[in-house]
Amino acid sequence: MELHLENVPRSVELTRSSGVTAFRYIDQRLLPDDLNVVETSEWHDVVDAIKVLAVRGAPAIGLAGAAALALWAAQADRFDDVEVVASEIATARPTAVNLQWAVDRALSEIEGVPESEIAATLFDLVKRMEAEDEAANRAIGANGAALLGPGTRVLTHCNAGSLATGYYGTALGIVYSAAEQGNIERVYADETRPVGQGARLTVWELSRAGVPVTLICDDMAASLMAKGKVDAVIVGADRIARNGDAANKIGTYGVAILAREHGIPFYVAAPFSTVDAALADGSGIVIEQRDACEVLPLPIEGVDVWNPAFDVTPARLITKIVTEKGAFSPEELASQL
Amino acid sequence: MELHLENVPRSVELTRSSGVTAFRYIDQRLLPDDLNVVETSEWHDVVDAIKVLAVRGAPAIGLAGAAALALWAAQADRFDDVEVVASEIATARPTAVNLQWAVDRALSEIEGVPESEIAATLFDLVKRMEAEDEAANRAIGANGAALLGPGTRVLTHCNAGSLATGYYGTALGIVYSAAEQGNIERVYADETRPVGQGARLTVWELSRAGVPVTLICDDMAASLMAKGKVDAVIVGADRIARNGDAANKIGTYGVAILAREHGIPFYVAAPFSTVDAALADGSGIVIEQRDACEVLPLPIEGVDVWNPAFDVTPARLITKIVTEKGAFSPEELASQL
Repeated sequence: MELHLENVPRSVELTRSSGVTAFRYIDQRLLPDDLNVVETSEWHDVVDAIKVLAVRGAPAIGLAGAAALALWAAQADRFDDVEVVASEIATARPTAVNLQWAVDRALSEIEGVPESEIAATLFDLVKRMEAEDEAANRAIGANGAALLGPGTRVLTHCNAGSLATGYYGTALGIVYSAAEQGNIERVYADETRPVGQGARLTVWELSRAGVPVTLICDDMAASLMAKGKVDAVIVGADRIARNGDAANKIGTYGVAILAREHGIPFYVAAPFSTVDAALADGSGIVIEQRDACEVLPLPIEGVDVWNPAFDVTPARLITKIVTEKGAFSPEELASQL
Repeated sequence: MELHLENVPRSVELTRSSGVTAFRYIDQRLLPDDLNVVETSEWHDVVDAIKVLAVRGAPAIGLAGAAALALWAAQADRFDDVEVVASEIATARPTAVNLQWAVDRALSEIEGVPESEIAATLFDLVKRMEAEDEAANRAIGANGAALLGPGTRVLTHCNAGSLATGYYGTALGIVYSAAEQGNIERVYADETRPVGQGARLTVWELSRAGVPVTLICDDMAASLMAKGKVDAVIVGADRIARNGDAANKIGTYGVAILAREHGIPFYVAAPFSTVDAALADGSGIVIEQRDACEVLPLPIEGVDVWNPAFDVTPARLITKIVTEKGAFSPEELASQL
């Protein structure tokens, strides 16, 4: 197996050309059928792209949120409503901490900066954050790959790949890093209903990168594990509490229970900024509820739908939380804050 | 809640009108959008209907298999190839024991019967089997309902309802019986990817019957249980080994693990004919592998698919196996054989 990461395009990127600042993103709703790169200079378009899941993945929506503020600043003629704009961006989706974190960082970066320099300051910050994100992911990859031996078969849920980040990915960053060392035999991707991030994004990204990948339905994971075909589960995270409880895409909690039942290590991969120091445990994490039509496109009379976008995996089911600072057991996490 | 079972049509039925024997079935592939009742006098059409899942559900395909043999006999001018025809019917799908059981029963019913009476004998047998199936399901319903208290919230996987049987259903037979006693608050239905028996059939059947039903994606079951919203899991079975290991729709095994993790009883409902006395345990059950296109309609280069149609839930995860003879722990089952 030869890794071809050059075939995986960047999912989000702030650009400037002929004095025009623009945000370029892959509309992930159209994958795997169409690779459609959208470019916009309107900050509100970016908020909409986050809301409709055209841009998704905790680190990617963090970068997109900071980029939205940079687009706003590039066109603003007054700056006194920055807090209102920042709040609208930061609340586009409720669960991932990265969005709030990125917007807060942007706000503190421009504190005391003269108005004439705010746009340039924010542009530079976003480009720095993009580079930091990729560097963090590569470090996560290396720290996680150190946990995997030869011939590893990985199961992942959702997409915590390059598409979900600035580049390289968190959970899939570990896969790429281990694949470079020749240690990945195959990745099994859960479909991840209802939005299908596994079926549409993870298999697309991995197959482009040249990593052997098998798609399964979410309800096949237990059977796959019972057959001895999974050596490690690796997933991303949208928010991690101080005690190590981790919110991630709906279904992650169930996979963690199945992994423990079958004696398979369960790794959560995320940049350290995903740790929300303000949260003692996962009970305080707001779970986004999404529209019924994602599950049931044509309503049936008398049929209700429950559609939470995330769940919380308790720390006791997590083997290691892999960050750019190292791989920690949930108990070790707090000491790193 | 008022139960309206009269709104749930029969899924399979052998008929005779003006001397023509015909098999009438609901094409379940078209539900919930279209309620299309197909009628055929050709035994081979019935085999095809079983293969493509137009007729599905272990008890229903057992009845359909026996009916196919009756259709063949109604048109046959020689009977010496009955074993060949019977074998082709019985192997239409490999996992459910009911199909083989029903065909074997039909074969022994016509042993020694004069050729001129074979068609009539088989017609009468199928009508008797249809009545026995409904009676068994109503007994399963009563035996299972005795296990449920007021306000019970049930989670089910796949469709073990009236649609999967001659009438009334096994897992959903318990729901109907408990609902008549006023003890069902709500049923949560797993989508059951890739074929969507929960999303298309269970919610359709329950909503027509007037039972409150909520559809969830398969990967939401763990989260639903953690929220304390499930009092009992009830599923059907396609084959049960002597030790109580039970094959059922893919995903059932995972739900059983999740139920145990959350301290929720896990009930398997099936007619006693589902118990395969020849099998010591579940390791001998052949698991049907189905086409990749069920999971991934448009192939993606470099992406494999794994698509087993069933899994085996080990006896240790099963609280009770509910049959028409009573509700037994897996350990008690063998003594009933």
